[in-house]
Amino acid sequence: MSQQKKQLRLGAFLMSSGHHVAAWRHPETPADGGLNFHHFRKVAQTAERGKFDMIFFADGVAVRQRGQGLDAVSRSAVVHFEPLTLLSALSVVTENIGLAATVSTTYNEPYHLARKFASLDYLSGGRAGWNLVTSATEAEAHNFNRDEHMEHGLRYERAREFVDVVTKLWDSWEDEAFVRDKASGIYFDPDKHHVPNHKGKHFSVLGPLNVARPPQGYPVIIQAGSSEDGQDLAAHTAEVIFTAQQTLAEAQAFYGGVKARVAQAGRNPDHVKIMPGVFPVIGKTEAEAKEKYDQLQELIHPYVGLGLLSGMIGGFDLSQYPIDGPLPDLPETNGGKSRQRLLTDLAKRDNLTIRELYLAIAGARGHRTILGTPQTIADQLEDWFVNGGADGFNIMPPYLPGGLDEFVDLVIPELQRRGLFRTEYEGKTLRENLGLPRPANQFTQVADAPELVSASR
Amino acid sequence: MSQQKKQLRLGAFLMSSGHHVAAWRHPETPADGGLNFHHFRKVAQTAERGKFDMIFFADGVAVRQRGQGLDAVSRSAVVHFEPLTLLSALSVVTENIGLAATVSTTYNEPYHLARKFASLDYLSGGRAGWNLVTSATEAEAHNFNRDEHMEHGLRYERAREFVDVVTKLWDSWEDEAFVRDKASGIYFDPDKHHVPNHKGKHFSVLGPLNVARPPQGYPVIIQAGSSEDGQDLAAHTAEVIFTAQQTLAEAQAFYGGVKARVAQAGRNPDHVKIMPGVFPVIGKTEAEAKEKYDQLQELIHPYVGLGLLSGMIGGFDLSQYPIDGPLPDLPETNGGKSRQRLLTDLAKRDNLTIRELYLAIAGARGHRTILGTPQTIADQLEDWFVNGGADGFNIMPPYLPGGLDEFVDLVIPELQRRGLFRTEYEGKTLRENLGLPRPANQFTQVADAPELVSASR
Ligand SMILES: Cc1cc2nc3c(=O)[nH]c(=O)nc-3n(C[C@H](O)[C@H](O)[C@H](O)COP(=O)(O)O)c2cc1C
Ligand SMILES: Cc1cc2nc3c(=O)[nH]c(=O)nc-3n(C[C@H](O)[C@H](O)[C@H](O)COP(=O)(O)O)c2cc1C
Repeated sequence: MSQQKKQLRLGAFLMSSGHHVAAWRHPETPADGGLNFHHFRKVAQTAERGKFDMIFFADGVAVRQRGQGLDAVSRSAVVHFEPLTLLSALSVVTENIGLAATVSTTYNEPYHLARKFASLDYLSGGRAGWNLVTSATEAEAHNFNRDEHMEHGLRYERAREFVDVVTKLWDSWEDEAFVRDKASGIYFDPDKHHVPNHKGKHFSVLGPLNVARPPQGYPVIIQAGSSEDGQDLAAHTAEVIFTAQQTLAEAQAFYGGVKARVAQAGRNPDHVKIMPGVFPVIGKTEAEAKEKYDQLQELIHPYVGLGLLSGMIGGFDLSQYPIDGPLPDLPETNGGKSRQRLLTDLAKRDNLTIRELYLAIAGARGHRTILGTPQTIADQLEDWFVNGGADGFNIMPPYLPGGLDEFVDLVIPELQRRGLFRTEYEGKTLRENLGLPRPANQFTQVADAPELVSASR
Repeated sequence: MSQQKKQLRLGAFLMSSGHHVAAWRHPETPADGGLNFHHFRKVAQTAERGKFDMIFFADGVAVRQRGQGLDAVSRSAVVHFEPLTLLSALSVVTENIGLAATVSTTYNEPYHLARKFASLDYLSGGRAGWNLVTSATEAEAHNFNRDEHMEHGLRYERAREFVDVVTKLWDSWEDEAFVRDKASGIYFDPDKHHVPNHKGKHFSVLGPLNVARPPQGYPVIIQAGSSEDGQDLAAHTAEVIFTAQQTLAEAQAFYGGVKARVAQAGRNPDHVKIMPGVFPVIGKTEAEAKEKYDQLQELIHPYVGLGLLSGMIGGFDLSQYPIDGPLPDLPETNGGKSRQRLLTDLAKRDNLTIRELYLAIAGARGHRTILGTPQTIADQLEDWFVNGGADGFNIMPPYLPGGLDEFVDLVIPELQRRGLFRTEYEGKTLRENLGLPRPANQFTQVADAPELVSASR
């Protein structure tokens, strides 16, 4: 066995009936996937059979409804499980796989978040991961007493302090604080109990947390945010970075940049795993893969395609124009001028109809699409992995459960044959499987203690 | 079978190693019960075997630490699972039993709460219940950016508006909104989609919720709060009321009062189930029950007893006085004068030592203690039930799993023999088992539609 080789990390990024915008219409997906626990149980168990490091859920605290009116009615992503409740349920039907959920620092309180992830870490025996985001939409603000989304810089300032509070709460109790000695009646050692008493600009939180220190010390901290502020926060706090990259050159630039920032922040770059999203369409032959992709593309309801496209060209309503005709001349838009120009240029250059244009932009939502056989897909993953573009990938099955079954049954064995991917889990916790160190408790740290994952600088 | 008789409702109120303050020291409890999923799985399955209507968890968003320093170190309630994550996990290992968790309206946001309970209702196939409280401690305020606990009247004002927002969110989608028609590509019917757009004093929430209408319409709404404001809120919104009552006369007064308020609020009094807490100590004989109780009482660490007592007499430190001597004369206290007087009178009248006094008040924390055989315990439950004191009970096992095993194996069969309690679940949802109507959607209500559970007046 070639287990000496550096190992690839894999996340299974799961979404309702799959990532493709029309996945719910695919004949082999459950159309109610987003709220169907049996569906998620099956898919999570498949990912565990494939030895994925973790399953991963995106999230938002508003209806994901990028279009308006008729566009929206064809979207399955409007309703779905809340990820922490779903992962808690999935913790019972899985044993080794990590359980990662996205939760925003903008519309939550650190005490609730620290508590829920600590609770999930206990439920799962140390398999929890938190994908820290700062939220992206106005719609979320409107569900939380606000007229507009918090300004970008302020969101990241809040996020940094948020992580600081959350790690202090997780450190409220030392690992050995609970002696639970029935004979003497001593439940915990008061010297191993710390009151965070945090007072900052955004938060004033006394603590301690009413959950013991999580099995992993801290749940694994994941980050998705690619702006300067986002990369800066990641450099100081993240252990996994989820990102969207289209070409190897772009991926290498991002990878190199983030790893340098991590080193600058005084942390070990190996302790931050960079995992771009990949949307794989798998066939026994290249032609079969192409056919599968086309089958999905054909399922995109014209409303949805038009809605997506309208959104990207500044909100201009295209429904009055023949769908198989050319893109009309567009009035100038207030927002997203460069994207509008990009699309009109593309349509002109390739002489695309409206339908052809929306098909070109639907699908992986900005992530990398790979069509191919198990071999050529493994080739492409390996290419990025060995050439400094990625430490692993967040796999986004186009449709579920089929798209994940194929990846597990066909691509994973190929990666294993190449010695790039585990055949058995190395450890019991997500942190152990990802090869990440267990963080020291900041309240007991001595000068030369192991690296502390914290936002404080 | 005498299934014609009115049926008793039973909740299994579960807490770490049990409700007795020293339960974790009992030889047969897991001392780490609060964070031990296998323990809760076993106990939940036992409650389901006993055909309980629901399991029930209290909660607070701070360490439950009523004492100080040495008192605290013997308390097991300091750390425990967060109840919504725990119930989500338990939904997978149970099939029929209701899953109820306490969540405060004072330190939460309605969008998060509506979403998580809706998600739990989907995970469990319609078994979720929400115990609405307004929080009781200063310590919780300090974990949420506040110097002091929100004032009582304001808390209830916020709670009323909170329920209003939450029910609007649950009604965002009509029951049949999701057509999910693969052929036409229509996922939902836009006419069955409602945007709450709530604007009130405490909350401004646009919606809609990103979860479909819960299987139960709304999760069952439970309420625990006995002040005037609390009873008023319950009359307008609650479907189950959890309360602490010591004597039948008190219980009858409370029961009659609340049912009258419910009728006044225009609701059907049968659709509000009043369930006082009961702390049962079960023996094959009365003497065995007494022995079991004494065994638990002896496990109360003197620190804990002194701490409890000190708290109840206004914070006066008793640790300098001989524990087996009399209660000293006390300085007058600022808070809780009547309780201080009650305790000093009790000590004088019965000539109690400090130890005897704290033993008298430890245990059921204000709830009714019943010691006896399965028959005499069933007698006492039946007495309250048939005489207008209760619609059912929230059973508080002194220690776990033993205290629940005994109730299920000995008391439940006795209640069943008397025709007072089910031998099989009647329905699949908590609402069906409790005999509660499924609420109509407020956005589609017509003049004579079924009762709507809502805080609006
Ligand atoms: C790959 C990727 C995945 C993301 N997933 C989510 C998500 O699930 N929920 C969310 O609210 N935001 C998500 N975001 C966006 C974050 O909210 C991000 O904080 C916001 O866009 C601002 O990030 P920026 O640093 O790129 O400006 C994601 C971002 C990226 C790059
Ligand atoms: C039987 C009972 C159980 C309660 N359980 C909880 C609880 O688990 N968590 C909590 O924060 N408050 C709990 N409370 C208190 C509520 O927070 C309540 O809203 C607060 O004490 C104020 O209520 P009141 O003044 O209306 O009695 C409980 C109250 C009663 C009567």
